Amino acid sequence: MGRVAGRHFLQIPGPSAVPDRVLRAIDMPVTDHRGPGFAEVGRAALEGMKSIFRTEQHVVIFPASGTGAWEAALVNTLSPGDRVLMYETGHFATLWYKMATKIGLRAELIKGDWRGGADASAIEEWLRADTAHEIKAVCVVHNETSTGSVTPVAEIRRAIDATGHPALFMVDTISGLASIDFRFDEWGVDVAVSGSQKGLMLPPGISFNAFSEKALMASERAGLQKSYWDWRDMLGPNEKGYFPYTPATNMLYGLNEAIAMLHEEGLENVFARHRRHGEAARRAVRAWGLDVLCARQGHESGVLTAVMMPEGHSADGFRKVVLENFNMSLGNGLSKVADKVFRIGHLGDFNDLMLMATLSGIEMGLGLAGVPHSPGGAQAAMEHLAETAPGAVTTG
Amino acid sequence: MGRVAGRHFLQIPGPSAVPDRVLRAIDMPVTDHRGPGFAEVGRAALEGMKSIFRTEQHVVIFPASGTGAWEAALVNTLSPGDRVLMYETGHFATLWYKMATKIGLRAELIKGDWRGGADASAIEEWLRADTAHEIKAVCVVHNETSTGSVTPVAEIRRAIDATGHPALFMVDTISGLASIDFRFDEWGVDVAVSGSQKGLMLPPGISFNAFSEKALMASERAGLQKSYWDWRDMLGPNEKGYFPYTPATNMLYGLNEAIAMLHEEGLENVFARHRRHGEAARRAVRAWGLDVLCARQGHESGVLTAVMMPEGHSADGFRKVVLENFNMSLGNGLSKVADKVFRIGHLGDFNDLMLMATLSGIEMGLGLAGVPHSPGGAQAAMEHLAETAPGAVTTG
Amino acid sequence: MGRVAGRHFLQIPGPSAVPDRVLRAIDMPVTDHRGPGFAEVGRAALEGMKSIFRTEQHVVIFPASGTGAWEAALVNTLSPGDRVLMYETGHFATLWYKMATKIGLRAELIKGDWRGGADASAIEEWLRADTAHEIKAVCVVHNETSTGSVTPVAEIRRAIDATGHPALFMVDTISGLASIDFRFDEWGVDVAVSGSQKGLMLPPGISFNAFSEKALMASERAGLQKSYWDWRDMLGPNEKGYFPYTPATNMLYGLNEAIAMLHEEGLENVFARHRRHGEAARRAVRAWGLDVLCARQGHESGVLTAVMMPEGHSADGFRKVVLENFNMSLGNGLSKVADKVFRIGHLGDFNDLMLMATLSGIEMGLGLAGVPHSPGGAQAAMEHLAETAPGAVTTG
Amino acid sequence: MGRVAGRHFLQIPGPSAVPDRVLRAIDMPVTDHRGPGFAEVGRAALEGMKSIFRTEQHVVIFPASGTGAWEAALVNTLSPGDRVLMYETGHFATLWYKMATKIGLRAELIKGDWRGGADASAIEEWLRADTAHEIKAVCVVHNETSTGSVTPVAEIRRAIDATGHPALFMVDTISGLASIDFRFDEWGVDVAVSGSQKGLMLPPGISFNAFSEKALMASERAGLQKSYWDWRDMLGPNEKGYFPYTPATNMLYGLNEAIAMLHEEGLENVFARHRRHGEAARRAVRAWGLDVLCARQGHESGVLTAVMMPEGHSADGFRKVVLENFNMSLGNGLSKVADKVFRIGHLGDFNDLMLMATLSGIEMGLGLAGVPHSPGGAQAAMEHLAETAPGAVTTG
Repeated sequence: MGRVAGRHFLQIPGPSAVPDRVLRAIDMPVTDHRGPGFAEVGRAALEGMKSIFRTEQHVVIFPASGTGAWEAALVNTLSPGDRVLMYETGHFATLWYKMATKIGLRAELIKGDWRGGADASAIEEWLRADTAHEIKAVCVVHNETSTGSVTPVAEIRRAIDATGHPALFMVDTISGLASIDFRFDEWGVDVAVSGSQKGLMLPPGISFNAFSEKALMASERAGLQKSYWDWRDMLGPNEKGYFPYTPATNMLYGLNEAIAMLHEEGLENVFARHRRHGEAARRAVRAWGLDVLCARQGHESGVLTAVMMPEGHSADGFRKVVLENFNMSLGNGLSKVADKVFRIGHLGDFNDLMLMATLSGIEMGLGLAGVPHSPGGAQAAMEHLAETAPGAVTTG
Repeated sequence: MGRVAGRHFLQIPGPSAVPDRVLRAIDMPVTDHRGPGFAEVGRAALEGMKSIFRTEQHVVIFPASGTGAWEAALVNTLSPGDRVLMYETGHFATLWYKMATKIGLRAELIKGDWRGGADASAIEEWLRADTAHEIKAVCVVHNETSTGSVTPVAEIRRAIDATGHPALFMVDTISGLASIDFRFDEWGVDVAVSGSQKGLMLPPGISFNAFSEKALMASERAGLQKSYWDWRDMLGPNEKGYFPYTPATNMLYGLNEAIAMLHEEGLENVFARHRRHGEAARRAVRAWGLDVLCARQGHESGVLTAVMMPEGHSADGFRKVVLENFNMSLGNGLSKVADKVFRIGHLGDFNDLMLMATLSGIEMGLGLAGVPHSPGGAQAAMEHLAETAPGAVTTG
Repeated sequence: MGRVAGRHFLQIPGPSAVPDRVLRAIDMPVTDHRGPGFAEVGRAALEGMKSIFRTEQHVVIFPASGTGAWEAALVNTLSPGDRVLMYETGHFATLWYKMATKIGLRAELIKGDWRGGADASAIEEWLRADTAHEIKAVCVVHNETSTGSVTPVAEIRRAIDATGHPALFMVDTISGLASIDFRFDEWGVDVAVSGSQKGLMLPPGISFNAFSEKALMASERAGLQKSYWDWRDMLGPNEKGYFPYTPATNMLYGLNEAIAMLHEEGLENVFARHRRHGEAARRAVRAWGLDVLCARQGHESGVLTAVMMPEGHSADGFRKVVLENFNMSLGNGLSKVADKVFRIGHLGDFNDLMLMATLSGIEMGLGLAGVPHSPGGAQAAMEHLAETAPGAVTTG
Repeated sequence: MGRVAGRHFLQIPGPSAVPDRVLRAIDMPVTDHRGPGFAEVGRAALEGMKSIFRTEQHVVIFPASGTGAWEAALVNTLSPGDRVLMYETGHFATLWYKMATKIGLRAELIKGDWRGGADASAIEEWLRADTAHEIKAVCVVHNETSTGSVTPVAEIRRAIDATGHPALFMVDTISGLASIDFRFDEWGVDVAVSGSQKGLMLPPGISFNAFSEKALMASERAGLQKSYWDWRDMLGPNEKGYFPYTPATNMLYGLNEAIAMLHEEGLENVFARHRRHGEAARRAVRAWGLDVLCARQGHESGVLTAVMMPEGHSADGFRKVVLENFNMSLGNGLSKVADKVFRIGHLGDFNDLMLMATLSGIEMGLGLAGVPHSPGGAQAAMEHLAETAPGAVTTG
């Protein structure tokens, strides 16, 4: 069978490829997480994450995947039977909804068509109807990893404010943070959920909650059962750079390196880079004559692009062809779009030539898999990248 | 202030020093955890852990620290208000008890003096008193990391059996597994809890539950709230080597390497090595004229040795002297023995000369810190190691 | 200025990108190079290199760059004033010629136009003229890294044989070995020179000589001054896996891993991969309307493609644009083609998508640098790759 | 046979154990050694090495082991038949002498007993006898790795100066540099030779020459054959941070990290650390009732301690016992002291507890191997370390 040569292209929408600097930072001896030297590591990680969330309120770090941080957001702030309003942007919003239901909340899901982010007016309407203020939280997914649609978080905030509704505002920005603009404090988010393996360029294994003073106050009377996820046990030790139970020390070394790298590039540049790659990817898709799953203008993601397969063609069959022929992993369609879409991850530590490699592999794979398409998608992307390259001459 | 030269000696009772082979295995590109290549990684990890737990029943892996796996053991099998019987072997047994209480169980803690493992006859007695079989679980800590005492798990099993009590038998072997003999199936354990950062020689970040068929059946009617920790969501995907949410991929690479290393050495040899180092460490302590915290013969741990400071001397002051002068971290005393004991970790990827370095550092530190002691502890340990070295001539 | 995101594309014709497996193998503790455990490492490296050179004769490994191995080839076999015949395939052949002259040989250089490999008939003619057999060695460069032309080694051997001339046959296969077919024994090579940082996928730092029994006999009477390079000091210790002076231990760990990887892929597959990528690259160049430096059919290299810039355009200016805009290093033109050609490395651990990234970066760079060209080169390469992909349907 | 647990103790007198920071620095992608980014790496390495040699004159770096740098020192400065004066401090001085002879110099070796460094008065006497100034170079070994004796370099300089002899002064400080005080400019050294794998804490693979203006001038008329080693080809490219042939790029990354670490600790502290460890090791040896090979007061090395075995006992047999029982490599006796001495390396990234581990392993090994000795050597060393620890209370 033999070895496959060259670098694997991990173009799923997360985990993203981990930069060597981060992997090497992780690859260092474990230290005493209760020793004096560790406080600096812990504090740097906690403070660093505040700079990424853009908050001066609270951030906690869990040794857990993002799914755990979802649970933490809910169990810290809510009580059994509480109503929560969620929005069906796609598979992950639905999973979060199912989790809420499973742990005893009365979760309500505003139906969505999976082709855009959450709709602010729908949320506004729903909240207006809740004159008794029974809804305790509004939960949206910032970047829906299953569809490549972005919810306009600031807009949702304005919609909530317009109603004067006191519900907490929770945002899953697992795949949005550090790739797409996110401003916890400015946008009045109460709880944000994130994970290590997307824009933060780490392996999976740690996840985050940012939370507001308001959410912290809510946690005082939240009745859902909790222990591992309890914020209040975290805050004391965190203040000094320590943790109530053993943290994932080596992941924290990596996190500190990743945060440094993000700031070296500049968060605004990171966001612009993702936007530009998203645009280039969509131009490729259109040139192939295929459809981008995200159909709502302004909601398109710079993190990933989900592509709809022509009727009668298997997205998974296509992905298999790409993997076997070109050593590239693409993301699969999840639940109701299973086998109907494939997803192109263009997030994390990514650049123009990696995108061109990715799109070339897709274009070749479409041919090999017999998927009807026009050639020229990679070429179209290339033109966009060249036109918008730092060195491009802009003529008036 | 200047760099401190040479290798840091991390002689806390976990995290243990991670071998280079394991760190290098972790330091590899992240792969698609839903891709065809990952199934092999996942299956190897799950099957490998069964060989370490010595079970043919079930093992699940959480992206979480050991504290999470404690919670998982309880929430998967029990319902609010259930009575559980626990044994106060030390700080960690007490923490587990507090967790049980916090999540709504009626936990009962058999008092202990922190100077031995759990007492089988006390447990037997307690169970006999529960003629209504209200107690749903008996929970003990295999190797109590705060004291260096080992609970004789097989003996507890026999005590339970003697009563005919149907309670589940749960064992925290976070710091015991892969260092001290543990036989899940043979000893009739129903739920075992473990973590990566002790005998498994990994950084902290993943943890484990092994569970029996009986425990799995109990999970069907267990009423505690759970989502992230739910075993039943794991078993389906696990069967094919996958996970219901993103696993800590790189930790799994490291886990597979660590399991291979344990089998290369041979589990029996690993256990014997720890026993021998424990004996040598205790000989050193006695030669210094100090007391080992574990006072119950046969319960002494090969994983760590907790040493009692002479009255009027600060264990933490001593530890600081050792750290600053000899670049070695020792474990601190926890809660009721805080500042009264220090703990010597001699677990994981450890050998004779590392132990001699450790004991030499302690002996020098005792002197520098002005702790009354007789010299010669390191020498006494050395003699034991030399006498029991593989190349020692044994004379009849 | 800020960090540049994503993976750097090192598309110079060596050093080639080192695979993670090899880097991680190097990243292990140094061991005692005179200890019993090291013999296995040394022997594996020496035997492994024989399998790569395809020889059952002798291989030695120098802690040195390829330039050192050039010198070793000459000083081990020749005496001051010896005539040696060399062929000007490009910059590196010329450097080797200058070295020969510098160390006291009467080196003769058959002029070449840098647009092909060595010409067998020219060599044959030259040797026929040497009826006195004064020429002691014929030296050619297998893959001329400065031009992208390949010398047909077997053909040169036949030409030498046709004349019955007894000269030693020396081949610099620094950038050819493990990328292009090379058969030391079958092709009757007497001394081959190679290095670590090309097809062997290692960092620079070690280099190699393979040599025949005939060359070894010549070394007995070779009068050039030598010490570090002396083969005869190597052979004794090498037999047991050791070295006469401290070897570059960690590079040998890496070498053993690289050799394993080459055999996992299969040398024939490695060669075919390079041929295919060379063809794709040349199709791109032609589609751009540019010229490949190698003008001799059948001599084109699968290791690199040197591209001629249109008159009046600076190759180095273009390379700078590519580096600054697309985070890719291309090779510069050397000596007489300085600033007139750029070189595309497509060697080592390389695959289709890496090639597409590379060619896309060049195509975009040509535009940004204002170099006249037709677009569509990347597209042309892509078509070739797709047609010849493993999964391509070949229709009769 | 099974894996041996724990960290291997590499206590040979070089290669020394490489710190993780250095190994991780090496474990990074290769970059274009002709690209703009590399200049900084090259310059930092060259300038950094000047700070280590304590020179403002010239330093060059060879991709080669130390043996190559020996050759470079001679061939750059001398002509065939030149007389050079060397001093037999031990095996390595003898090897250098043999090399000098082999490449055509008339080398003269002042006999030594291998139990001390070079004797200044003997050199002075020899030079005074050379009234014709035929001797072109005086060559001594700073730290003789085969014996553990240090030549007082400044004293030799004064002896040469006392005679007014114009010979170049060459010092092999392969195992001395960055462990023992060395001041190239202040001590008027003309050529210094060093290597990566000792005090510089790198794997073997690169080596160094520092040279004075006087040596550079000598190189203009030096007639020995040279090419790879030619300083003059280095200086031009070096000025800009580049190299005339492919440098060992990844080793240079490691070198820059190692230099940073040495300066973080402070060179004076590094030297003091080695002196203190040497003293402790010798106290152990004396307590065992064994003899240190270095018998000349003030010449004892802080880098290694060579220990004489009692008559009738095999040093290599003893070393084998230590390796097999305690996973530690000790250095063997070389040539005339083969099997009669073993060498304890205590150099590089080394600290008190590593020394205690080392000495404990030796003490246990002496017992297991049946070597007559008094116990208590480790204890004696421990006492010295404790008394001289940073935290030791010094009483008047």
